[in-house]
Amino acid sequence: MIYLDNSATTRPFPGILDTFRQTADRYFANPSSIHPLGGEAERLLGASRERVLTALGVREGSIIFTSGGTESNNLAIKGAAFMHQSRGNHLITTKIEHPSVIEAFESLESFGFDVTYVDVDARGHVNPEAIREAIREDTILVSVMSVNNEIGSIQPLKEIGDVLRFYPKIYFHVDHVQGQGKIDLSLEKTGVDLCSISGHKIHGLKGTGMLYKKKHVRLFPLNHGGGQEQGNRAGTENLPGIVSFTKALRMIEEEKMEKKTELRGLRDYLYESLEGIDGIIVNSPIHAAPHIINFSMPGYKPEVVIHALAKRDIYISTKSACASKEPDKSAVLEACGAKDEVSTSALRVSLSYQSTKEELDIFLSSLIEVKNSLVQTSEV
Amino acid sequence: MIYLDNSATTRPFPGILDTFRQTADRYFANPSSIHPLGGEAERLLGASRERVLTALGVREGSIIFTSGGTESNNLAIKGAAFMHQSRGNHLITTKIEHPSVIEAFESLESFGFDVTYVDVDARGHVNPEAIREAIREDTILVSVMSVNNEIGSIQPLKEIGDVLRFYPKIYFHVDHVQGQGKIDLSLEKTGVDLCSISGHKIHGLKGTGMLYKKKHVRLFPLNHGGGQEQGNRAGTENLPGIVSFTKALRMIEEEKMEKKTELRGLRDYLYESLEGIDGIIVNSPIHAAPHIINFSMPGYKPEVVIHALAKRDIYISTKSACASKEPDKSAVLEACGAKDEVSTSALRVSLSYQSTKEELDIFLSSLIEVKNSLVQTSEV
Repeated sequence: MIYLDNSATTRPFPGILDTFRQTADRYFANPSSIHPLGGEAERLLGASRERVLTALGVREGSIIFTSGGTESNNLAIKGAAFMHQSRGNHLITTKIEHPSVIEAFESLESFGFDVTYVDVDARGHVNPEAIREAIREDTILVSVMSVNNEIGSIQPLKEIGDVLRFYPKIYFHVDHVQGQGKIDLSLEKTGVDLCSISGHKIHGLKGTGMLYKKKHVRLFPLNHGGGQEQGNRAGTENLPGIVSFTKALRMIEEEKMEKKTELRGLRDYLYESLEGIDGIIVNSPIHAAPHIINFSMPGYKPEVVIHALAKRDIYISTKSACASKEPDKSAVLEACGAKDEVSTSALRVSLSYQSTKEELDIFLSSLIEVKNSLVQTSEV
Repeated sequence: MIYLDNSATTRPFPGILDTFRQTADRYFANPSSIHPLGGEAERLLGASRERVLTALGVREGSIIFTSGGTESNNLAIKGAAFMHQSRGNHLITTKIEHPSVIEAFESLESFGFDVTYVDVDARGHVNPEAIREAIREDTILVSVMSVNNEIGSIQPLKEIGDVLRFYPKIYFHVDHVQGQGKIDLSLEKTGVDLCSISGHKIHGLKGTGMLYKKKHVRLFPLNHGGGQEQGNRAGTENLPGIVSFTKALRMIEEEKMEKKTELRGLRDYLYESLEGIDGIIVNSPIHAAPHIINFSMPGYKPEVVIHALAKRDIYISTKSACASKEPDKSAVLEACGAKDEVSTSALRVSLSYQSTKEELDIFLSSLIEVKNSLVQTSEV
């Protein structure tokens, strides 16, 4: 199997399922129980928070463990908006965010919030000046992703953070789901107040994730109840999931240190190879995340290409998994100004640190074969 | 180890962790991916929903998989309230609901909703007539738990459902987290519109749960995004968690059929034995759920008793785990009209189908020893 859909989800790292099982077996008690079994579980929970802070390279801050990236994004955005509505009701994001960000903002419009969706350029980059221009007196939140999930463009978060430094009352949220373990992001130097990370995108388990929160930031919870996660997210903690998430986070950071240049090299090789194929348009910027390449084959239905490749045991995707049941056009490519023939024929290859040049060569030759066979079919 | 804190959390059934691992290994793809690996995962997801409907004995309805009971309660209550606010803003619940219900309602008060918290009697029972009397023209939701998590009282849901049958526009939500697998509840005959169930209370895994929803009921999601769970709960599905939840649900229903009478017998034995100990007041009603017994030892600090028992490898709890970090008084016992000396000295024993009479005998003799030694200590 050649699995090139790692931005949709990743295979768990070796050992992650062992960690899950051992934790579930040994620390099965409820961390809120006051007997010693609960105390042991609670200590492991606290240690996991500390390990996450270390892995993220932050000195202090709160880690809110969640059920995944979507919940983290919703909690950050709705939680900040509802908690601070008295200060203002204007929110800023971009036109190419993940559906869990865009639709969280859209849902807030029905609660009377006013949202500015900032444009991006042809390569999917937000201009920090456009963020500055969008700011109003009643702005309370800016949310920008680190790496776009469809085309891999990296947003200028440092520069956006520099703009926002002059507005200390505006919270800065970063959806780092596609960036974690792939690009460097210093939360403290960038001035990030809230940052979402997903477990299953970094070879952890589905149903796990976290929201980093600067200490002073207050959120209105989505889930009220027993006061877990420092009152930000009620519900019995999924300790086996949390411990496995913590392990995956540490492991992906190690892989990044060891294999980042190699992954970048593979991506550049793929980029150049795809650009050399007649009839293929590469949509990703040349300088982008090291694991995502988006390209279009105008005139070909993406799902037909995907299924033809799948018959050869090669798995790639259209757009993003979370938007793949929507009509065929990519909203991200549309926001980048792509023509319809491009935005309706987009395919995404997403690599992992386990991807090899041999796999990419097989993918490339298979893609050319599929392309030729489909052309021939349509010529009959 | 004698674990008698099964209402806080349960040990996973044998085989549950194998199921989790096998699913995570074999079906690691994102169910939203359109390639065949995604398709396989999606079919398993659909099959899990069907199995849950069968296990619950309902012919049709939607199953929304969530991260647990707290999320299910929050989604049901906030989701129904926000979606139907145009029809009315009055909500009804009781004074002895779980914190994830009570605090979800309290959070809605800050959005302009008006909530009636109906009283209970000395045994923790809601009078269906009190529900009827609380109903107004603008009532849109009634939420009543099936089994109280602290004292085990069973609410007259059938009779409440009969009241609500005359108000087809009022949704009926049941927090069934403590009742599932322990008492019978026909969702269809009771007229339940929304029903919350947790995985880790039925020997499944933490981070898993579900909300049953009658087909026509519409909810405002807590988590917006990729449209998963029929648009009710976005986020990549935790398929290994979902499959393990489905298995636990089937297994607890089988255990109920086989061992319900036995569990009831153990509970009655424990009830009578505790009533026979001088200085102990049993707070649970005699006719109640077969797994929860709450009792008070006025004059003794519950946490001291719990730690003394824990030294003998016996684990029981105060109140509920989700409320155990709160000040010492039980809000449930207070709502039942208990005196302070009772509501501040409450202990909870919660059984599973694995509990044995031998364990209860050891617990009882240990409790008496602890009680005597603590008295002696205070007499010194």
